[in-house]
Amino acid sequence: MAIITFMSDFGMSDHYVSAVKAKILSMNPSLRIIDISHEIEPFNIAHAAFVLKHVFRDFPKGTIHLVAVNSHGEKNNRYLCLKIEDHFFLGPDNGIFSLICESEPGMIAELFNNENDNMSFPAKNILAKNAAMIASGSSMNDIGAFTKDYIQKIDRKFRASKKQISGNVIHVDHYGNLISNIEEEVFNILKKDRKFIIQFGREKIDKINKSYNEVDDGDCFVIFNNLGLLEIGINKGNASRLLGLNYDSAVSIIFEDPPNSTL
Amino acid sequence: MAIITFMSDFGMSDHYVSAVKAKILSMNPSLRIIDISHEIEPFNIAHAAFVLKHVFRDFPKGTIHLVAVNSHGEKNNRYLCLKIEDHFFLGPDNGIFSLICESEPGMIAELFNNENDNMSFPAKNILAKNAAMIASGSSMNDIGAFTKDYIQKIDRKFRASKKQISGNVIHVDHYGNLISNIEEEVFNILKKDRKFIIQFGREKIDKINKSYNEVDDGDCFVIFNNLGLLEIGINKGNASRLLGLNYDSAVSIIFEDPPNSTL
Amino acid sequence: MAIITFMSDFGMSDHYVSAVKAKILSMNPSLRIIDISHEIEPFNIAHAAFVLKHVFRDFPKGTIHLVAVNSHGEKNNRYLCLKIEDHFFLGPDNGIFSLICESEPGMIAELFNNENDNMSFPAKNILAKNAAMIASGSSMNDIGAFTKDYIQKIDRKFRASKKQISGNVIHVDHYGNLISNIEEEVFNILKKDRKFIIQFGREKIDKINKSYNEVDDGDCFVIFNNLGLLEIGINKGNASRLLGLNYDSAVSIIFEDPPNSTL
Repeated sequence: MAIITFMSDFGMSDHYVSAVKAKILSMNPSLRIIDISHEIEPFNIAHAAFVLKHVFRDFPKGTIHLVAVNSHGEKNNRYLCLKIEDHFFLGPDNGIFSLICESEPGMIAELFNNENDNMSFPAKNILAKNAAMIASGSSMNDIGAFTKDYIQKIDRKFRASKKQISGNVIHVDHYGNLISNIEEEVFNILKKDRKFIIQFGREKIDKINKSYNEVDDGDCFVIFNNLGLLEIGINKGNASRLLGLNYDSAVSIIFEDPPNSTL
Repeated sequence: MAIITFMSDFGMSDHYVSAVKAKILSMNPSLRIIDISHEIEPFNIAHAAFVLKHVFRDFPKGTIHLVAVNSHGEKNNRYLCLKIEDHFFLGPDNGIFSLICESEPGMIAELFNNENDNMSFPAKNILAKNAAMIASGSSMNDIGAFTKDYIQKIDRKFRASKKQISGNVIHVDHYGNLISNIEEEVFNILKKDRKFIIQFGREKIDKINKSYNEVDDGDCFVIFNNLGLLEIGINKGNASRLLGLNYDSAVSIIFEDPPNSTL
Repeated sequence: MAIITFMSDFGMSDHYVSAVKAKILSMNPSLRIIDISHEIEPFNIAHAAFVLKHVFRDFPKGTIHLVAVNSHGEKNNRYLCLKIEDHFFLGPDNGIFSLICESEPGMIAELFNNENDNMSFPAKNILAKNAAMIASGSSMNDIGAFTKDYIQKIDRKFRASKKQISGNVIHVDHYGNLISNIEEEVFNILKKDRKFIIQFGREKIDKINKSYNEVDDGDCFVIFNNLGLLEIGINKGNASRLLGLNYDSAVSIIFEDPPNSTL
């Protein structure tokens, strides 16, 4: 039986999360639901996309991902099921699905909506119902009409030249670590044998650490994390608070002149 | 096998939640536990009742609801199992069960308590144990003595006349939306063809929206939500904070004079 | 099939918790994962040990406890599997395991680490993988090399004399209750028939309550809780905030002179 993952911006102090789960279980009591997070910042699609993008492939293929973030925020009132890399995603057509994967979705269906009066809780009445159907063996054309139309948003990208990579903080995690959009692969191609300086806030650092614990407690580290992204933190401290940096803060790497530039 | 739902004011930073689950699983490893919420405000029975009232019917009949809110707050030291609409509820006799349902419970049993020295963690030693027994097939008279006696509290009600409905905010949700006790059904009966003004804080609004996303971002909406209750919010904003309103704040609907009143 | 419990300082707003679960389920979809807490204060081993120490024995023997607190904080980069009282524990060698049990672990294995490049997410790539293997039937020597070497930390102990027991707050729970390291057993031995005064902050109390609800709302209680530890709280209030006490605050019990001391 397929797994259903569930991510939302519902928080845990209301009945919303358990109402969605109850709907799924009342349709098929043998289904298994794994929470991804219900602490997505309200309405924050970038936050949701960051989390989902970096975890969905860890689940087995065929997993159904129910995404109730900003779940009645758009005026189009469209709800989608997408198949991406053999995973199913159900959620509102609010742009989130264009941010979790570089490639185009394999299939997109706009979910049928026969129930006129329950649009005030679509996560339960539309998404949970259809997620349970897919998990129970229904196919995408049982639950919606195929379409090519979905809202696409553009991810925040770094800019790179031979001299410099300029990026931004795209996520501040629970520890206050600052995760940027600067990719290890690009850094390695541009660096060659050159020295470099990493700049963020008022800090300048000329070294990339191999692990979080290579620096002493309270010292700043810069690593390429297991996502392949440049991450800045303070060992056993909260870098976001201590450095005064946050989502969108600039991070750049400036390379020295090429070693042979004066030849 | 029946589902056990679990709601508490325990928070998630202690061993309390997992100790209750461990007790259930050590009695019957095949039982399934679904968390409703552990972020109920400490000792807040109104909060707990609001959440449970609006979700318990979404679970299959026969579900067992373990309610550990204000779980050792009352001097009577009574713990109950109630059967309401074919759902089982286990919790302290602190008034919560009179608030989740208009009708009388079908059956009430006061749980036996053979263990003298463990009253300092009744959620584990009394509620979890007996919830696992019911979920494993025990009947109510195996675990307690039938009674008619339980603490009844009176829910906060709106007042309605031909001219006006006066209610209160009975729940502020995770988004800061203000959910009132004004019911759609009563509004529809009283309204007839008349215009009306909805008042809350310093706001006056003369319209009820059909959906959360009908207004622009940052604008105030008023809808009858999927619970049939009047809900006030700000699209993609926090109405509670922005309007300075909270639990218990007044909300009223004033109808204009009847269209034929001057005939 | 054994249960895997999961405790971390990851919080719930990132992909970390679900990435670990996905890893476990992708190795063996039938495994069952019970969250202990992901709200352990970042890097706080004392907090983690307090919670785990007081709940692990509630789970069935054979349970596997995955502990990802301060999970890449130590320079030794060692990850362990320990067998303690027929429970398995997997986590970093950061001292936590010496704090959850008075006795020595039965067996300790240092986990193999064949994957060179993934040390930036050991909770997923090392702990989750090996927890799933143990839960699926592997033995400890399949996943690591036996050792006797592990970091041992010393727990904060009370001091006791015939005249006085001096302890500290070792945990502040979600309600603000102050749990001290003063043990009921020691108190009973020393007390004999004498009167006593309990001191904490500016308070002096000469009585130990039998239950949380014995005092009126807003009044201070002192009980020996179900862990056998002296706990101070305010009925339906937050003692930590109202008394200005916190982790490490002093708590002492001063006994009066022996009844026959003047004979």
